[in-house]
Amino acid sequence: MKSLKNNTAKLPRFSKRPAPGALPGTFAISQDAETPTLAVIQYNSEQLVEKTVTDVDSIADYISDDTITWVNVQGVGDASTFLQLSNMFGVHRLAMEDAVNGMQRPKIESYGEKIFIVVRVLSQVAKHLRNDQLSIFLGNNFVLSIQEKPGDHFGSILEQIRESKGCIRKSGSDYLTYALIDAIIDSYFPLVGDFGEEIELVDEQLSSSVRLNYMEKIHDLRGDLMTLRRSIRPLRDALISVKPTNTELFCEETKIYLRDCYDHTNQLVDLLDNYRELCSHLRDYHMSIVSNRMNEVMKVLTITGTIFIPLSFITGLYGMNFDTSLPGNMPLLKLPFGYIMALSIMVGVAGSMLVFIWRKGWFSSG
Amino acid sequence: MKSLKNNTAKLPRFSKRPAPGALPGTFAISQDAETPTLAVIQYNSEQLVEKTVTDVDSIADYISDDTITWVNVQGVGDASTFLQLSNMFGVHRLAMEDAVNGMQRPKIESYGEKIFIVVRVLSQVAKHLRNDQLSIFLGNNFVLSIQEKPGDHFGSILEQIRESKGCIRKSGSDYLTYALIDAIIDSYFPLVGDFGEEIELVDEQLSSSVRLNYMEKIHDLRGDLMTLRRSIRPLRDALISVKPTNTELFCEETKIYLRDCYDHTNQLVDLLDNYRELCSHLRDYHMSIVSNRMNEVMKVLTITGTIFIPLSFITGLYGMNFDTSLPGNMPLLKLPFGYIMALSIMVGVAGSMLVFIWRKGWFSSG
Amino acid sequence: MKSLKNNTAKLPRFSKRPAPGALPGTFAISQDAETPTLAVIQYNSEQLVEKTVTDVDSIADYISDDTITWVNVQGVGDASTFLQLSNMFGVHRLAMEDAVNGMQRPKIESYGEKIFIVVRVLSQVAKHLRNDQLSIFLGNNFVLSIQEKPGDHFGSILEQIRESKGCIRKSGSDYLTYALIDAIIDSYFPLVGDFGEEIELVDEQLSSSVRLNYMEKIHDLRGDLMTLRRSIRPLRDALISVKPTNTELFCEETKIYLRDCYDHTNQLVDLLDNYRELCSHLRDYHMSIVSNRMNEVMKVLTITGTIFIPLSFITGLYGMNFDTSLPGNMPLLKLPFGYIMALSIMVGVAGSMLVFIWRKGWFSSG
Amino acid sequence: MKSLKNNTAKLPRFSKRPAPGALPGTFAISQDAETPTLAVIQYNSEQLVEKTVTDVDSIADYISDDTITWVNVQGVGDASTFLQLSNMFGVHRLAMEDAVNGMQRPKIESYGEKIFIVVRVLSQVAKHLRNDQLSIFLGNNFVLSIQEKPGDHFGSILEQIRESKGCIRKSGSDYLTYALIDAIIDSYFPLVGDFGEEIELVDEQLSSSVRLNYMEKIHDLRGDLMTLRRSIRPLRDALISVKPTNTELFCEETKIYLRDCYDHTNQLVDLLDNYRELCSHLRDYHMSIVSNRMNEVMKVLTITGTIFIPLSFITGLYGMNFDTSLPGNMPLLKLPFGYIMALSIMVGVAGSMLVFIWRKGWFSSG
Amino acid sequence: MKSLKNNTAKLPRFSKRPAPGALPGTFAISQDAETPTLAVIQYNSEQLVEKTVTDVDSIADYISDDTITWVNVQGVGDASTFLQLSNMFGVHRLAMEDAVNGMQRPKIESYGEKIFIVVRVLSQVAKHLRNDQLSIFLGNNFVLSIQEKPGDHFGSILEQIRESKGCIRKSGSDYLTYALIDAIIDSYFPLVGDFGEEIELVDEQLSSSVRLNYMEKIHDLRGDLMTLRRSIRPLRDALISVKPTNTELFCEETKIYLRDCYDHTNQLVDLLDNYRELCSHLRDYHMSIVSNRMNEVMKVLTITGTIFIPLSFITGLYGMNFDTSLPGNMPLLKLPFGYIMALSIMVGVAGSMLVFIWRKGWFSSG
Repeated sequence: MKSLKNNTAKLPRFSKRPAPGALPGTFAISQDAETPTLAVIQYNSEQLVEKTVTDVDSIADYISDDTITWVNVQGVGDASTFLQLSNMFGVHRLAMEDAVNGMQRPKIESYGEKIFIVVRVLSQVAKHLRNDQLSIFLGNNFVLSIQEKPGDHFGSILEQIRESKGCIRKSGSDYLTYALIDAIIDSYFPLVGDFGEEIELVDEQLSSSVRLNYMEKIHDLRGDLMTLRRSIRPLRDALISVKPTNTELFCEETKIYLRDCYDHTNQLVDLLDNYRELCSHLRDYHMSIVSNRMNEVMKVLTITGTIFIPLSFITGLYGMNFDTSLPGNMPLLKLPFGYIMALSIMVGVAGSMLVFIWRKGWFSSG
Repeated sequence: MKSLKNNTAKLPRFSKRPAPGALPGTFAISQDAETPTLAVIQYNSEQLVEKTVTDVDSIADYISDDTITWVNVQGVGDASTFLQLSNMFGVHRLAMEDAVNGMQRPKIESYGEKIFIVVRVLSQVAKHLRNDQLSIFLGNNFVLSIQEKPGDHFGSILEQIRESKGCIRKSGSDYLTYALIDAIIDSYFPLVGDFGEEIELVDEQLSSSVRLNYMEKIHDLRGDLMTLRRSIRPLRDALISVKPTNTELFCEETKIYLRDCYDHTNQLVDLLDNYRELCSHLRDYHMSIVSNRMNEVMKVLTITGTIFIPLSFITGLYGMNFDTSLPGNMPLLKLPFGYIMALSIMVGVAGSMLVFIWRKGWFSSG
Repeated sequence: MKSLKNNTAKLPRFSKRPAPGALPGTFAISQDAETPTLAVIQYNSEQLVEKTVTDVDSIADYISDDTITWVNVQGVGDASTFLQLSNMFGVHRLAMEDAVNGMQRPKIESYGEKIFIVVRVLSQVAKHLRNDQLSIFLGNNFVLSIQEKPGDHFGSILEQIRESKGCIRKSGSDYLTYALIDAIIDSYFPLVGDFGEEIELVDEQLSSSVRLNYMEKIHDLRGDLMTLRRSIRPLRDALISVKPTNTELFCEETKIYLRDCYDHTNQLVDLLDNYRELCSHLRDYHMSIVSNRMNEVMKVLTITGTIFIPLSFITGLYGMNFDTSLPGNMPLLKLPFGYIMALSIMVGVAGSMLVFIWRKGWFSSG
Repeated sequence: MKSLKNNTAKLPRFSKRPAPGALPGTFAISQDAETPTLAVIQYNSEQLVEKTVTDVDSIADYISDDTITWVNVQGVGDASTFLQLSNMFGVHRLAMEDAVNGMQRPKIESYGEKIFIVVRVLSQVAKHLRNDQLSIFLGNNFVLSIQEKPGDHFGSILEQIRESKGCIRKSGSDYLTYALIDAIIDSYFPLVGDFGEEIELVDEQLSSSVRLNYMEKIHDLRGDLMTLRRSIRPLRDALISVKPTNTELFCEETKIYLRDCYDHTNQLVDLLDNYRELCSHLRDYHMSIVSNRMNEVMKVLTITGTIFIPLSFITGLYGMNFDTSLPGNMPLLKLPFGYIMALSIMVGVAGSMLVFIWRKGWFSSG
Repeated sequence: MKSLKNNTAKLPRFSKRPAPGALPGTFAISQDAETPTLAVIQYNSEQLVEKTVTDVDSIADYISDDTITWVNVQGVGDASTFLQLSNMFGVHRLAMEDAVNGMQRPKIESYGEKIFIVVRVLSQVAKHLRNDQLSIFLGNNFVLSIQEKPGDHFGSILEQIRESKGCIRKSGSDYLTYALIDAIIDSYFPLVGDFGEEIELVDEQLSSSVRLNYMEKIHDLRGDLMTLRRSIRPLRDALISVKPTNTELFCEETKIYLRDCYDHTNQLVDLLDNYRELCSHLRDYHMSIVSNRMNEVMKVLTITGTIFIPLSFITGLYGMNFDTSLPGNMPLLKLPFGYIMALSIMVGVAGSMLVFIWRKGWFSSG
């Protein structure tokens, strides 16, 4: 999960923004964007048509008033495609610009009779966290979903449509939209779960071992957390705004399902907030462990120094070369057992130092 | 209380969530979930029937318009049971999913004419804090309560019903719901009280002793606190939303009782917020004690070094082997009482060092 | 003010709460609660009756529609008294439970045509801060005030009633309630003022002296502050909610007086918030002083070591016992004035070290 | 600006508050309060009367329905004056109490048809910051301003009235009130500007020099900042509440001018918030500089010790007095050029230590 | 970007404010303000007139009811110009004062039928960040934009008008206003992007290298961040207030475009908030790196000291000059291979010290 931060960090660098001074609604197509592929599914409770089209105009054949048409576009590498889609579905240029240019915060905006939804798709690819955009346009009888990068996020929904499982076939375009959002939110749970396990691993290791330097790990985790929160929190806030009866496109029943989505994001945000607090506890804890370790190092030096530096002074004293044949000069040197006496003095000094240190409580490891 | 954090930490790992792509409303039954047991109590002010049933369909016999039916389910280990209950009481699939899958934040949601309530049951079992879910469905003439784990939390309520004490027998399903919530909230108080005692113990010990390392303890307390707050705070916020007249299921009188519940959770949250602040004060205080201890260690080393290192240099000086028979070489060595003079110099140096240190105030223990 | 924290800390331990499972509205009478004494005052602008009663029923004689009856109860040690009072004045059991059990946050709740008010009475007794509860029930023609502990807080109000000073005799029960609350709020000012003086004393001492360890003091002050805020802040918030016209019991004129109460609590909370910020400034300041002191200690050791350790090495060099009669062995020892030369080398080394240290700026005390 | 904090700190000590138990509306006149002087100005677009009166009753002569009467009182040292003023202008006793007793937070309160405004007057007198109160009562045809301390803050407004400059003469009492508030707010700008310069000076000095201890300075600045915010922020919040059409006393045009006042205080608060953030950055920065300095001190000691302590050991080794005539005892001592060999060993040890240190990067100053 | 902070810091010093006591609406023209140049563009969908005028009165010729007149003023160095403009377009004196005096926070204010908008223009000139003001007055048929400093920010808008690209020619004055604001907001993105790159560079360098002192850099980045947030955040807040239908000057379609502007500023603020959090993470990380470095320095000293100080003591012991011919004095000195024995003792002492240190884990680099 290390490079998660780096990957997503590229996002806010705005490399894909149209040049300042461009007309509003200009599409900024980056070099490495994939050519879009279009999958069209037309269904109601009785019929089902599934097609992969290359010509945008041919989509018009699959739109009718008593069916739901879901167009899923993967890749944003061709401006004209989106210009045509924009005209065909009557979608506002500014909204389509946001869908094509990517780098939007999660949001739910209403443009007259259409609703424009942006969701971030997080997926972990070889230790990297990819953070792509999914844009959804919801109209009365259509859903247009645009994935910034190709990726199979909606397999189970396709299956539900094909096999008439669940309510999608029986419900309107609003329920399909709910199903798409729900699928993305469901994919957040394992990611956040893995993150939680990593953070608890650090917590446990901090308590058990005293040797490693976890600060870099904690710093990285905090960065990842920021990315996760930036992707999920605004989605939750956007979902709150749908809860009341402010749009006619969502029927009462679907609103109950959206409330469930809100509830899930709320659970995730709650958890991420907890992780965030835990991270700052870990920082505090780590700092205190570092301080304690420093304390222990200093104590060893101080104990060594306090005992041996005075002793060395005494040995130095009796190593001085005063002429002992002269009076008053180092009488001890000339005594029998003077050496033993000197040693006794040293033992006394060392002993009183040890008592002093023991009283300070420095031999305990705290 | 140490492993409290670990136990509850497993909760957000979402091991029990249905796989991504599952239909909304899918029950995720974990391996170790207990087989549900169902206790049915049908009562009004005049009559009382109490049964333990195994066949869900037989519950229908105990439901009538002029009685209250309370079904208490313990254990969530069988999907079909909850499917039947869901149909029998007309409960929304999404709500029943939340009840069976567990891991929900405390909340109060209205589904048409039913109200769905989630409360966390905290209980301390052998130094472990178990954090289970209690889900309550409230209808006009029934209360369906689902305990994630078997446990006797409602003994006193049963007694009140059996012995016609208090108002339960005389009141509607809303009052029974209040009584259930109130019983759970009452069980929080001793837990929070114990926590408060632990934190104050640390506070007192920090002030009195200087030897132990309390950081791990403080870190653990902060983790426990996070768990407690995560379980109680959302309940308080949910209870606020019931206070105004937004649901018809709660009558005026019961709302006064619910306000009392709110008041209790508010008291608990208030207290937990205080403990949280106290924890960060303890961290500050602990850090400063560690710093002071380090200071003291350094001062002892510095005092020893400052006095004896110069003295050792002087002894080294007179231990040099210059040929004293040559002119200019170490005249003191050849003087009578030179040793005494050297000692005097040393006493002078040590004395002035002591004065210097005394002036710095390093002999005081601050 | 040291033990302030300990005293009030006992409050949230809930030792006085009814056992979990008790019926709502159960009174928990603690062992050491005083037997209640009841003082009854019946007044209007013309008449005044003052009695101390022992039989609760006899209070009924002092209640009439054209007078105000103020019953002041001191001590909560008898359940039956409060049961009788509850019935006589038509007070809700839950509210009376809160009044008797104590440990409530300050609040203003309306129960139909009665208003229930909780205020914390802070009083400093022999360096201890007592934190008792005052509960007030306000009805159309009565005020029932219940003091958790006996204490003379309302002497000036009695005087005003007896001597017909001020507006109490001319006004309704709402004005008397205001007067009681105002008396309690007025008693906060000297407490907060004393606290402010203590905190500023620490501030001044930190700046002037460098020797003492103020962290324990700061830690204690922060604890006291938490207690003060917990008692005053919720009262302010409760008083806001009375400001608009949400209750008919308070007339327009009294609301202006309550706004004045709100203003006073707001002033106190404002001040306590300032003290809180100041406390964390003091912590920062103290930490930096400790760091600086450590720095100074280390500098002294480093200066001593940097100068004398190299010198000691040189003396050690010339103290080696190489056979100087052999070629190449320690020629300096055999030179006349070799000692002087060695000393010169040492002076040179010490001098360059001093220059190095001086350039680092370590002799300045910063 | 040092003693700013001390001066204003006296304010919240409530030395001037009436004794607890005093009747509401009691004036607390402190000993050192100046005797009030009263200046009366009666004007409309055509006429202008200016008088200094000593007898309060004579003010009545200068009040009429078609003129604006501005009474400016300097000093609050006489209770009877304010009692008379209170009666003459029909001002509420509680409001007049706030005006006379001082120590109020900035606020705008409406009392029926009068508006009561409190503003703090900050002025720097000989390095001291005086924090006095200005109270303004606004009625339909009068403005009563009460300065806690005499001081000429309204010179330019007098000039505008006398010379008929600007709109004051043509407008109502609300515009005059605006002019008074605006004059006070204008006087905040140089104070805040000076503060900003001081804080930026510290910022620059921290970056350039490494020797001084700025923590005391930063601590003082933070205290001053708290005082400034306490005086300005509530005023801004009060001015917001005037913006909507909640009072009839302010006409539409004057409200635009008050919005401008709000805008100015908003600018000031914004700036003070920035300074506050900058202060905590400075604290962080200072702490890190202190840590770095400590690091450097320790490195010098460690380098000295690491090189010379092993060398001293070697010299000590060859300074031992073993009898070299016995076999196996210190053979090097008896070799020609043994001294040179020993020196070579020392150079080798010192060299490898230097390489070790150089690799650690300790010679760089970071 | 270093001096960014200094440049913008000059802004709040209020050097350009009118003197306290000045009439409201006074223009404060600073010495170094450029003489204003006026460009007039009159257009509708059919016609286009472009002129640079010197005489303000001649602008009147270019105003008509069925065209849009855009007057762009660069430089604010002449009071009379703005007085004339104020009268010509019926702009409120207070608003014009804000436009001329500069130093305003971004805001959108309505003055009757005109709207006054302030935006900060950030531009990086030779490593300096210039922070100038752009004031826009929007009327029914005119837009008056006033740049504090000359600068070509609207080239692309001019081009769109001249070449009839986009919607400007077809739309009203509200759309032109949107285009001006959008151009400024677009210019923030590269600035914020550069800032983001700088902050991530520090992040990467902190992780890879351990030698440099990044605190000054982090401190500077935090200062820059404060400036950016101060310029962008209030603009976002102002744009929210335009979203609802509170002004008639903005038509529905233009409000959708303004919502897009809001969305962009929201994205920027979101990003800046992230950077802010990242900065405090970097501070934590840096502090911990410094602590670790100190730990390592101390460990080297302690290891050296712990091993060699006891050894030096032993050498000192055998360097004492006791008379070995007397009994009991240093017997080892007189033994054959006594030297080897002494060396063995030393190796033993050093070895046990090494084991002690190795067990402490001090040889690992954490």
